Amino acid sequence: MAKLNWGIIGGGEGSQIGLAHRMCSALDDKFQFRAGAMDVDPVKACEYGTRLGLEPDRAYGSWQDMLAAEKIREDRLDLVTIATPNSTHFEITKAFLENGFNVLCEKPMTMTLDEAKEIVALQAKTGQICAVNYGYSGYPMVRQMREMVRNGDLGAVRSFVAEFSHGFHADAADADNPRVRWRYDPKQAGVSAQFADCGIHALHLASFVLGQNPKKVSADFAACVPGRELEDDALVALRMDQGAVGRLWSSSIAIGRMHGLTLQVFGEKGGLRWAQEQPNQLYWNPINQSVQILERGQAGLSDASIDASRLTIGHAEGAPVAFANIYKSIAKDIEARKLGLSLDQNELGYPTAFDGMVSMAAIDAAAKSATAASAWTELDLN
Amino acid sequence: MAKLNWGIIGGGEGSQIGLAHRMCSALDDKFQFRAGAMDVDPVKACEYGTRLGLEPDRAYGSWQDMLAAEKIREDRLDLVTIATPNSTHFEITKAFLENGFNVLCEKPMTMTLDEAKEIVALQAKTGQICAVNYGYSGYPMVRQMREMVRNGDLGAVRSFVAEFSHGFHADAADADNPRVRWRYDPKQAGVSAQFADCGIHALHLASFVLGQNPKKVSADFAACVPGRELEDDALVALRMDQGAVGRLWSSSIAIGRMHGLTLQVFGEKGGLRWAQEQPNQLYWNPINQSVQILERGQAGLSDASIDASRLTIGHAEGAPVAFANIYKSIAKDIEARKLGLSLDQNELGYPTAFDGMVSMAAIDAAAKSATAASAWTELDLN
Amino acid sequence: MAKLNWGIIGGGEGSQIGLAHRMCSALDDKFQFRAGAMDVDPVKACEYGTRLGLEPDRAYGSWQDMLAAEKIREDRLDLVTIATPNSTHFEITKAFLENGFNVLCEKPMTMTLDEAKEIVALQAKTGQICAVNYGYSGYPMVRQMREMVRNGDLGAVRSFVAEFSHGFHADAADADNPRVRWRYDPKQAGVSAQFADCGIHALHLASFVLGQNPKKVSADFAACVPGRELEDDALVALRMDQGAVGRLWSSSIAIGRMHGLTLQVFGEKGGLRWAQEQPNQLYWNPINQSVQILERGQAGLSDASIDASRLTIGHAEGAPVAFANIYKSIAKDIEARKLGLSLDQNELGYPTAFDGMVSMAAIDAAAKSATAASAWTELDLN
Amino acid sequence: MAKLNWGIIGGGEGSQIGLAHRMCSALDDKFQFRAGAMDVDPVKACEYGTRLGLEPDRAYGSWQDMLAAEKIREDRLDLVTIATPNSTHFEITKAFLENGFNVLCEKPMTMTLDEAKEIVALQAKTGQICAVNYGYSGYPMVRQMREMVRNGDLGAVRSFVAEFSHGFHADAADADNPRVRWRYDPKQAGVSAQFADCGIHALHLASFVLGQNPKKVSADFAACVPGRELEDDALVALRMDQGAVGRLWSSSIAIGRMHGLTLQVFGEKGGLRWAQEQPNQLYWNPINQSVQILERGQAGLSDASIDASRLTIGHAEGAPVAFANIYKSIAKDIEARKLGLSLDQNELGYPTAFDGMVSMAAIDAAAKSATAASAWTELDLN
Repeated sequence: MAKLNWGIIGGGEGSQIGLAHRMCSALDDKFQFRAGAMDVDPVKACEYGTRLGLEPDRAYGSWQDMLAAEKIREDRLDLVTIATPNSTHFEITKAFLENGFNVLCEKPMTMTLDEAKEIVALQAKTGQICAVNYGYSGYPMVRQMREMVRNGDLGAVRSFVAEFSHGFHADAADADNPRVRWRYDPKQAGVSAQFADCGIHALHLASFVLGQNPKKVSADFAACVPGRELEDDALVALRMDQGAVGRLWSSSIAIGRMHGLTLQVFGEKGGLRWAQEQPNQLYWNPINQSVQILERGQAGLSDASIDASRLTIGHAEGAPVAFANIYKSIAKDIEARKLGLSLDQNELGYPTAFDGMVSMAAIDAAAKSATAASAWTELDLN
Repeated sequence: MAKLNWGIIGGGEGSQIGLAHRMCSALDDKFQFRAGAMDVDPVKACEYGTRLGLEPDRAYGSWQDMLAAEKIREDRLDLVTIATPNSTHFEITKAFLENGFNVLCEKPMTMTLDEAKEIVALQAKTGQICAVNYGYSGYPMVRQMREMVRNGDLGAVRSFVAEFSHGFHADAADADNPRVRWRYDPKQAGVSAQFADCGIHALHLASFVLGQNPKKVSADFAACVPGRELEDDALVALRMDQGAVGRLWSSSIAIGRMHGLTLQVFGEKGGLRWAQEQPNQLYWNPINQSVQILERGQAGLSDASIDASRLTIGHAEGAPVAFANIYKSIAKDIEARKLGLSLDQNELGYPTAFDGMVSMAAIDAAAKSATAASAWTELDLN
Repeated sequence: MAKLNWGIIGGGEGSQIGLAHRMCSALDDKFQFRAGAMDVDPVKACEYGTRLGLEPDRAYGSWQDMLAAEKIREDRLDLVTIATPNSTHFEITKAFLENGFNVLCEKPMTMTLDEAKEIVALQAKTGQICAVNYGYSGYPMVRQMREMVRNGDLGAVRSFVAEFSHGFHADAADADNPRVRWRYDPKQAGVSAQFADCGIHALHLASFVLGQNPKKVSADFAACVPGRELEDDALVALRMDQGAVGRLWSSSIAIGRMHGLTLQVFGEKGGLRWAQEQPNQLYWNPINQSVQILERGQAGLSDASIDASRLTIGHAEGAPVAFANIYKSIAKDIEARKLGLSLDQNELGYPTAFDGMVSMAAIDAAAKSATAASAWTELDLN
Repeated sequence: MAKLNWGIIGGGEGSQIGLAHRMCSALDDKFQFRAGAMDVDPVKACEYGTRLGLEPDRAYGSWQDMLAAEKIREDRLDLVTIATPNSTHFEITKAFLENGFNVLCEKPMTMTLDEAKEIVALQAKTGQICAVNYGYSGYPMVRQMREMVRNGDLGAVRSFVAEFSHGFHADAADADNPRVRWRYDPKQAGVSAQFADCGIHALHLASFVLGQNPKKVSADFAACVPGRELEDDALVALRMDQGAVGRLWSSSIAIGRMHGLTLQVFGEKGGLRWAQEQPNQLYWNPINQSVQILERGQAGLSDASIDASRLTIGHAEGAPVAFANIYKSIAKDIEARKLGLSLDQNELGYPTAFDGMVSMAAIDAAAKSATAASAWTELDLN
């Protein structure tokens, strides 16, 4: 099948996220980079796009131009990635969905829960792909965990423990740095800082692996660095919609933690433990047996894990491959749709607008709980 | 100085805790095992004590006999260890304290907070040593953490994360096993199971290292294995009396976790991480520098750490040495008292009746919070 | 600058190495896949190349066709990757070098030392790039080690310990499997099996980091699985040309080891330790201080490490990024040459024909030593 | 059974090894410390022994006095530990054996191979226990490895890899320190420094686990710190008497390594990996399955491992317990002999004079090989 046409909005010069998207979309020879509106400054946007090798007529000066031109092209984009500032995600995602494009939106999908619900409804109406970039779910051993849960290896899942903690906002001397400060300012960041920024990745991962969504939360938000209004350290208790108990900790003041995204899952028949920083090993303890180390690439792993894996066992694979797996899954869906097929979303495994909405609901509920003496608060998913 | 006279109540044949106390009290040549009432069956008690080498007249049939006889001996015991079933700790501790003995009581010190307050008051009145066996605080690198906090290496401590989780009560098929079941039965175990049994060790460790006591808690208790009334998985948010934020997780259904007692401490100027299962390494990240691995026995550690360490660097030391350090610290206190000296309790570092009382208050408050929708609940320490 | 034209010989359908080269060459947007002779079967070669998106006239049926056609094109290839069976590397590399192409050859560069010397001489004469794919040297923290050595952080290097061991040829029941058997058959594999296949990667890594080449070796080769003529387990002592002592172990029967490529370097002033399976951490012990964990992406690392790194700290990066760094370094060289500049090979850091020749000499010397009672044997590098 | 009478020669005030022996002999309530000649200065010896609680008539001024007095006592010592300087081990061990005492000698048992052979012959003649303190073999998971090998879990053992490396003699500025210098001076230390001091522990461990003794060696000794005559870094290839291949590395200049004693064993049917620094975990990979982590204390381990273990699973146990297990095994033998029983040495598992002799032969052979261009050299065990 010919390569799929791909474009990006945002991710301009110097942006790490833009580089990551170009790198990861290219990794599997599925997508060809064809169009972009890569900077809020139209001149820079055109110049940078051209410099990256886009045809001049597809190096757009704005996302509006891009939408207008692409929607009438024969070789229109098969997928548009939205990597602009958070506050613009809703508007752009909505516009492209409405015009029949498939979209991959950076997280957070929207700034409010109401907007998220609107996107979910719109996606349902249009039927286009609306993916959200919870990229860690692309790790082969995360997909392995999910398959083991689906397969019943753990029996009924009783609980999970999820973390996403780092220490890179711990320096009080750096707290007024604008690149840090806005995150803890409710006027710019909304109702939550660290839980919304990092914790939500851990929660998505747990939901993805368990196949359960959060139903209610009890949260404790702490602003440990003086002067902050929003939390830099969050502890959240959860109940999932099929009964699992959840424990989640996220912090940005945990000096010594780097990118501490971990997930433990405990069921009737066994327990699993995985850490993003060493993502090629999965610790699996079938009850009353020894702990086993499952290695990415070893014999006997699930098809989903094998499909997400590129190199033979023992080669360290990492985040770029994981993120590329989101693209790979989306490509599989697009290609199937071109052939008139409809694949099972569960088998495809990429995160969707619904996941984006659940995240917004979880953030809202946690923030409410935190201001109400940690009282249990239900997610509003209606 | 001559060896100190030591005796034990409980810890009869087949008891691991009894063996541990004999082993750890002997480790430093400070205590001589001289007396015991080691079984609730008087015949067995005398027989077993004699078999272990006690003089026949000091292998007692009951703790009452032991108290009556020892209190009039010239060579009376310098320290009595109480390793009987939990429900008897209060009565025996009280009786020995009232008669002028120094006591080391297994945890929990009492079954209720009121009893604990009574012991604290009694200890204050008699001035005898009343230690409680939070033995993990004897690890050299735990003492190192504490000294680093006291020394200001971390600046003000902002938060801690403590865990004590295992998976040994996860098997539903084993839930009716009497050795497991009583733990989750409020009639036998009180208001809390896993938090009171294991979590409280993690909380003591945090208090010990931070030099701060818990002030209020918000707790979520979950009984994951069907049929249990008390929690087998607990998540507790805390505020300490000098402002530190606390996160604590304890579980007995975490299949794959063995004896997962860990403590992380985060301050303005750095973070620490320690795990009981690999206790000879302490991870220390001074802010804006690399993570360092501090090894037990390396040059430049604190005096408290060095004093608690027996072998040169690189030799794995473990729990028996840690527990022996509690005895070592108590011996230092007893020897000083014999010389008419009064040592600073902070420097001695062994856990006291006050710690036992704080634990009971924390358990009470957590259990109340858990039944009140996780609402924040103050500890009653008055 | 416009994208560089890239082509590949070999790496046909189902080949992992072919996929890896396409993936890694694409990762940085530097190379465009333009031509290939991807299968020994001309029909399959054309069909597969076209299917991957090559223009039909550049999906060649043989490397000879490719050479003939490409050498007269205006948009001739900037780099040709050779990923064919080992026995053909020499002939193809030679042919393309002679016709003025830059080449990246899979290892081993040749089957014999004499051939390797011929390639080195040819490269010197033509001045074209002749790189050899010792891809592990592209890891950011390997480049960090190298810079620390160059910078004198370790003082004079005294010794290194290198390993590359796995257990995937341990099963005697699988020994007759043709995919395994040929490796241990001197008629097909030459004078060495495991040392030549894996150990040589570890040796290249050590040479790369130390900036020293091996001068003499004493080797013990063992064929542990019955029926094998060549070694499946090798121990090699070395002396490097600037005096460093080397210890190298490589095995294919080490059940439980996955892809155990590790390097430790010890100097007057400190020691380093790195493992491919967890490649984002580098353990650095400045003498008389604590061990530090250097994290890929942290502040203060060398420019070479930063340049080889794609994502922020804490994101696991892995082998695909490392291998892509070889392409990135070659691209930098090609682009400079197009501008008439000559960059310092040491700064570029990609492995060259000279490295390929040293490897062949080391293999020859080790095999000779192993058959002469492990007597010390000099490398023939003249 | 009454406690066994134990005494020590050497291990005076300030000696770590003396403290370790008193601590470890006491750990199991089997031995009572009854006699000692603890210092070469008779006055200090008597004073220190008395201070430690010995009866004045058994706090001897010299080992000769001790021998003369103890051999005529009714309650003569059941075991004498020899912890004097290396050069005196032979003489004292010989004297006590000749007079019918059981002996536990620190390693090295003698200074020469001839002396070692004399001790072995003497032990055979007298039938007394002559143990040598290769204490690391007392670790529960080392004994587990040994039982798994004996039980055939690995099939025929093909190879082992053993290490014992540290970096504490790496500082050139410290090389003239007398406490370091003598170790590298052949006049004081004999034919080998690092291999004889540390490497030999690793070799004993391998022999113990495999149930095979070394038959021939090829060694490379390097003196990396300027001015040293004896090696501070050794690489040794081995062949064991039942065919296993061995690889051993030992270094004292490996900055960053603490007490790096590790053993890997590879057989037809699986592989094992253990490290002294984290001794409670044993990595076991049955061929074609996942790696398992065996935890000290878990269900299903061997009796030998259980017997060597004191605390429940998950509690870190360490070197003091391991060393105590040597005493525990000797006590079992002594108690059996008192009852007229003869236990199987293989089941007892403590290291004997024969092990001490093999060590001396291995050191001799390795030193010869190292000076003969690493040529293979047979051990002289006749």
